[in-house]
Amino acid sequence: MGDDVSQYQVGDLVGVGCMVDSCRECKACQDGLENYCADGFVMTYGSPDKHDGTLTQGGYSDKVVVSERFVVRMPDGLDLKSAAPILCAGITTYSPLKHYGVKPGHKVGVIGMGGLGHMGVKLAKALGAEVTLFTRSESKKAEAKKQGADHVVISTSDEEMQAVAETFDFMLDTVPVQHDINPYLEALKPDGTHILVGLLEPIDPAISGANLVFRRRVLAGSLIGGMPETQEVLDFCAEHGITCDVEMINIDQINEAWERMQKGDVKYRFVIDMASLKDAQAA
Amino acid sequence: MGDDVSQYQVGDLVGVGCMVDSCRECKACQDGLENYCADGFVMTYGSPDKHDGTLTQGGYSDKVVVSERFVVRMPDGLDLKSAAPILCAGITTYSPLKHYGVKPGHKVGVIGMGGLGHMGVKLAKALGAEVTLFTRSESKKAEAKKQGADHVVISTSDEEMQAVAETFDFMLDTVPVQHDINPYLEALKPDGTHILVGLLEPIDPAISGANLVFRRRVLAGSLIGGMPETQEVLDFCAEHGITCDVEMINIDQINEAWERMQKGDVKYRFVIDMASLKDAQAA
Repeated sequence: MGDDVSQYQVGDLVGVGCMVDSCRECKACQDGLENYCADGFVMTYGSPDKHDGTLTQGGYSDKVVVSERFVVRMPDGLDLKSAAPILCAGITTYSPLKHYGVKPGHKVGVIGMGGLGHMGVKLAKALGAEVTLFTRSESKKAEAKKQGADHVVISTSDEEMQAVAETFDFMLDTVPVQHDINPYLEALKPDGTHILVGLLEPIDPAISGANLVFRRRVLAGSLIGGMPETQEVLDFCAEHGITCDVEMINIDQINEAWERMQKGDVKYRFVIDMASLKDAQAA
Repeated sequence: MGDDVSQYQVGDLVGVGCMVDSCRECKACQDGLENYCADGFVMTYGSPDKHDGTLTQGGYSDKVVVSERFVVRMPDGLDLKSAAPILCAGITTYSPLKHYGVKPGHKVGVIGMGGLGHMGVKLAKALGAEVTLFTRSESKKAEAKKQGADHVVISTSDEEMQAVAETFDFMLDTVPVQHDINPYLEALKPDGTHILVGLLEPIDPAISGANLVFRRRVLAGSLIGGMPETQEVLDFCAEHGITCDVEMINIDQINEAWERMQKGDVKYRFVIDMASLKDAQAA
């Protein structure tokens, strides 16, 4: 992606994900892993802009100027509103599945079924894995199967957890609040990998070192994905007919949506129709 | 290694490491990773024997019957007393270095310089890595250099730890008691791997999820090594002239040695000359 000749034409449909800039010079940036930029990337929302220092406004803008490097092409055939969260929830779950080489024959557990979890289920399935959704609530069983999960395990049931001990190659842990990781480590085979994509807090209860050492297990973290891989996941989703389940709202429903989100009452992402902002301003 | 035709002759010099048996049928055993046997391996010391149920006595025996699979050939040219701990401290540090592909160009940190740590330094150097020893005590600096470390970092110095932030590919953590892993995670590059070989307890203070997620770092565990790799590390040590630094004692010095070990006063392993047991019994 040179800076002189653009690969995009006026009128092309493009997307902007979680990042709009990075140092572009460190090893991570050179490797197309701008998400791990040594200087920290510039987030699309709430980050100081490198040029004028103002805070980036993300999707709450009617125009945005973004360097070509941080833009992705929207593939034909993807419903736009349903594709938008692929740029966050999609790439966040796709990147580690690809990085660790998930493929047919692998057993993958997905922990939690929110925006990230339901994309994790769809993507792991599309990569050929046998997918088990771990959830605390019996009520999510049918929904998990509908999303494509081969199996559902109720994580609060000692019996169900015991039954899957040492059987998984990977766990994709999408839970963003503190939770006990040990029972999931115990569900991994030797050499199994537990991937955190949501938990940024101190890990409490404490991980038992023995759960890693005695089975050569791995606890890993992963954060969104680089720009080349963000294009890749969009193309992959277009090819496999995968989108995020969304509910589109108008801008004037934002407070209600916020309250519903706090209660977990959303399947699985709200998408704001920005055309409604113009209507609201005109009114 | 078939059970019918032995690869050993009467009079061959062989070694027995930490294991004397395993199920031999699970996937790990089939892969030569008897150390991760699904049934748990039979330890050389203090494990119930699969055949008669008695506790294994390890090196405190003057004879031992061991299946050929759990025996390794002692290569020519290795001093026996100095080679003995390769079967534990050596394989424990070699196995993860090999598993994660440590090679020239890699920066490896070794945390702690006891029996495992000093072998970790020697082996990581022999694999071509640039090696930094992390220790709490200024007094170990000269000794670490003597053992082959390229650099020494005093881990209690915030300044020294800051200076190495995001510079390591691997950390080999040999510390067997609870300690804060976060400062070491912060010393890893993106994709860096922190390998626990000694810590079996709950990890306290808690690991920050962010330290893994924001840099795609990995926390891993590793336990001794399988039988084929135990032969490999012996051959590797013979080729590179590596042995463990040991102090050989007679059996009647065992209580004194135990007290010194409790105080950390050993460089780096005591080895008991079992001939002295016969002398003691004869006396």
